[in-house]
Amino acid sequence: MAVTAEMIKELRAATGVGILDCRKALEATGGDYDRAVDYLREKGLAKAAKRADRDASEGVVELYSHGAGRVGVMVEVNCETDFVARSEAFRTLAHEIALQIAASAPKYVKADEIPAAELEHEADIARARAIEEGKPKNVMAKIVEGRVEKFKDEVCLMRQAYIRDESLTIEKLILQNVAAIGESVIVRRFQRWELGEGTNQ
Amino acid sequence: MAVTAEMIKELRAATGVGILDCRKALEATGGDYDRAVDYLREKGLAKAAKRADRDASEGVVELYSHGAGRVGVMVEVNCETDFVARSEAFRTLAHEIALQIAASAPKYVKADEIPAAELEHEADIARARAIEEGKPKNVMAKIVEGRVEKFKDEVCLMRQAYIRDESLTIEKLILQNVAAIGESVIVRRFQRWELGEGTNQ
Repeated sequence: MAVTAEMIKELRAATGVGILDCRKALEATGGDYDRAVDYLREKGLAKAAKRADRDASEGVVELYSHGAGRVGVMVEVNCETDFVARSEAFRTLAHEIALQIAASAPKYVKADEIPAAELEHEADIARARAIEEGKPKNVMAKIVEGRVEKFKDEVCLMRQAYIRDESLTIEKLILQNVAAIGESVIVRRFQRWELGEGTNQ
Repeated sequence: MAVTAEMIKELRAATGVGILDCRKALEATGGDYDRAVDYLREKGLAKAAKRADRDASEGVVELYSHGAGRVGVMVEVNCETDFVARSEAFRTLAHEIALQIAASAPKYVKADEIPAAELEHEADIARARAIEEGKPKNVMAKIVEGRVEKFKDEVCLMRQAYIRDESLTIEKLILQNVAAIGESVIVRRFQRWELGEGTNQ
């Protein structure tokens, strides 16, 4: 990999090391950023240096606490500009999303984050239950599919019914607000903790 | 595994299913709680049921936001009683710990959480640097060890210097407060998010 001025600039910005040493480090490590930082650290020239973010997003890390600190929610909601990030419409929406997470305890943002094994497990249970209920074979696949979709509606934030208006999903709530906000809004990640719960759930 | 009244009670509390069906489910699954829940779900008797927490701790999920929502911190601090959890001394300590995390961005609570590979990587860099600096062989191991310990002081919350009094580590800060608080205090887990940072760091 050729060492570009861009790469040198990035390494220099992160480590504060001079241009010549940054070039030498990148050349010695085939242009690998992480290995170039190690190279500079081995020479005693730099401390550990976190890479500057390439796609620094705007938005907010919104916090919400419930029950005198028994439940805590942290959610990162992104938008495109700092101007919108500071707007009341955006902040209100981020707060509603945090409230939703506190109240409805989703496990994922979107359905494509659900591990395949978890979906298979749900399908197995739905199938066993349909057999137990004596459902005819020709509708079995449809019933199983319907129940797995319902499971997704329950565990995915974007598919959950909005706690203040059950006719809306959170995805629709966000879309409704995008018009007023004026740019796209993305829920990037969230964590919801309950005091004393198992940490590997 | 013999099915005990305790196990039936726990399953009943979590699922709301009657005693007889809970016993049947546990007997059919060898007393395995998770499989017993699946058994009841397959029969259409129960919904997915999270196990009640066995060691429900007291304390607080403390939140702290910095830079108008550019940095968010969530930390769970445990104590032994609800009474202490509501006390000002405990709440103040939890708040100081959240502030520390926001300011000093530790990666772990304690040193034993650092992955072995990360420690080895630090040792490798320290060794290469010591060679580069022409340190004599007989002190090499000691120098490497010293630098790895320094690394631990930087990345572990409990070993960090307290931002308001650098003569104290966070561990010592907590110990100092335990006398006033009257029971043991444990930092169980924390998350520190910056807007737009890479999520796999």
